[in-house]
Amino acid sequence: MAVYTDITDAELEAFLGDYDVGTPLAFKGIAEGVENSNFMLETTAGRFILTVYERRVKAEDLPFFLGLMQWLAAQGYPSAAPIADRSGALLRTLRGKPAALVAFLPGLSVRRPTVAHCLEAGEGLAWLHLAANGFPGRRVNRLGHAAWGELFAPLGPAADALKPGLAEVIRSDLARFAERWPSSLPEGIVHADYFPDNVFFIDGRFGATIDFYFAAWDQLAYDIGAAVNAWCFEADGSFNLTRAQAFLEGYERRRKLSAAEKAALPVLAHGAALRFFLTRLHDWDATPAGALVRPKDPLEYERKMAVHREGLPGFGSWS
Amino acid sequence: MAVYTDITDAELEAFLGDYDVGTPLAFKGIAEGVENSNFMLETTAGRFILTVYERRVKAEDLPFFLGLMQWLAAQGYPSAAPIADRSGALLRTLRGKPAALVAFLPGLSVRRPTVAHCLEAGEGLAWLHLAANGFPGRRVNRLGHAAWGELFAPLGPAADALKPGLAEVIRSDLARFAERWPSSLPEGIVHADYFPDNVFFIDGRFGATIDFYFAAWDQLAYDIGAAVNAWCFEADGSFNLTRAQAFLEGYERRRKLSAAEKAALPVLAHGAALRFFLTRLHDWDATPAGALVRPKDPLEYERKMAVHREGLPGFGSWS
Repeated sequence: MAVYTDITDAELEAFLGDYDVGTPLAFKGIAEGVENSNFMLETTAGRFILTVYERRVKAEDLPFFLGLMQWLAAQGYPSAAPIADRSGALLRTLRGKPAALVAFLPGLSVRRPTVAHCLEAGEGLAWLHLAANGFPGRRVNRLGHAAWGELFAPLGPAADALKPGLAEVIRSDLARFAERWPSSLPEGIVHADYFPDNVFFIDGRFGATIDFYFAAWDQLAYDIGAAVNAWCFEADGSFNLTRAQAFLEGYERRRKLSAAEKAALPVLAHGAALRFFLTRLHDWDATPAGALVRPKDPLEYERKMAVHREGLPGFGSWS
Repeated sequence: MAVYTDITDAELEAFLGDYDVGTPLAFKGIAEGVENSNFMLETTAGRFILTVYERRVKAEDLPFFLGLMQWLAAQGYPSAAPIADRSGALLRTLRGKPAALVAFLPGLSVRRPTVAHCLEAGEGLAWLHLAANGFPGRRVNRLGHAAWGELFAPLGPAADALKPGLAEVIRSDLARFAERWPSSLPEGIVHADYFPDNVFFIDGRFGATIDFYFAAWDQLAYDIGAAVNAWCFEADGSFNLTRAQAFLEGYERRRKLSAAEKAALPVLAHGAALRFFLTRLHDWDATPAGALVRPKDPLEYERKMAVHREGLPGFGSWS
């Protein structure tokens, strides 16, 4: 929720000089996106989002992300289409940083998803999985199952500082994942960050998906596990079965899940909770006490892991 | 440049329920405005800016500011028209803070104004002065000439910390202002913060004025003095006579200045430089060393005061 890079009118004019997108009518920094600077741009030709890529997003991954967004838009999936400059380039440089122009998408994200929102969001995710089918780009999920042991290795003391004894519990989780993580489920492109703030609704219907900067190749059902964590828990940390069933029902409107995928959802969701816990713990550990900007609370995902260890009533267990 | 208040989709829906502005299509926090939270809202009925008033803006002043904006829009001046709810209220409450909905205005602000921009901006300011004529609201300029002595009183040590000997120089300025500050120039509503970031251009022509949250009753030429400081100095601190002459030429397209007003411009501009120096010094003094957010540099306006003490070549002097 910040704008890190300041773009002057003269810099904007120079940047747009290489595009066929008309002349600017309005330009405002917006508080959207994970760790990039985003600007809403209106020109005589339409509306766009200008993104300047800051930390975290690796420059070498950007052709994959932008290529995927272009592919999805070409399939008719409602995601922001990148705009090519006159030379055909999707990726440019602004203030020495990578930058891209994408089409503006209307829609509103929801803070507290209802059952109806979960149904729509599930359908939107399945549609994404199908629309990405055939996209030739590949990117390893660097925050996927194979990476968790290494991600956790330096964080044991931080975990225990957060909650005494937690490091041992997570090591036990990691040992169980090593034994039982599924490996033969259908694979494809996953969004990997399909959270409510990355999904737009229009009049209560699924409208669009944004922020593809974690997308990678992985087991498709893993994306559902991560999404269930984000969409189907209450603020008090409890699991909402009705919303989870709605999410799956919506998903299966577009893509039927195999019995193996359904059976794997509890372990996939538990693993996905660990993945978000690990990056939040890392950020929390790396932020000095007293800093003005506090990172997201890792305990939210610690609680979700605890729920998964108990098993999700009515949704299954993998113990 | 920040969004301080977070508005959920449910809060937005509840807020808009009292307005006839259609249903929301898009809603994004934007980095605009001095110290308020601003959101760009698109609905089925059009585009709006939702402002939640944070620090600095006093709640009791808001009816004046919103009334002025309504008056100016009714005169055809391009400033954001406040939108009344169904009960006719311009000022509402959101998350326990004052909030208002205003019409969206297209246009781009410029970082480094050219001579042509200054000509247009000068005309825009004179138009504002004329359009505000007849507005019945009154607000004392609490940052005007009468307030400077009191504002400076606690800041002597901070001034000397910034630049040794500066406190004495400012006390000497204050003594000269007490003797020579004009008091019989034409009065009216002044914007009092007519800086380049508060003026929008469309295709290089004056487009609109925003951010009326310093507006007050004062001598009209004082507004020109403050604007000349903001529009007609180089980044290296030197005065640009060509831009200043263009600003005045543009102003006089709409409103002729009297000989007394012209003669008073050097002292008014010097005083206006002191006013911005004082509030920046206050913010600088109140911000702990090492804070992540640094306030605006008071030295920028210290340098402008020094230029005014020397007199502005070709523009006059009041020594």
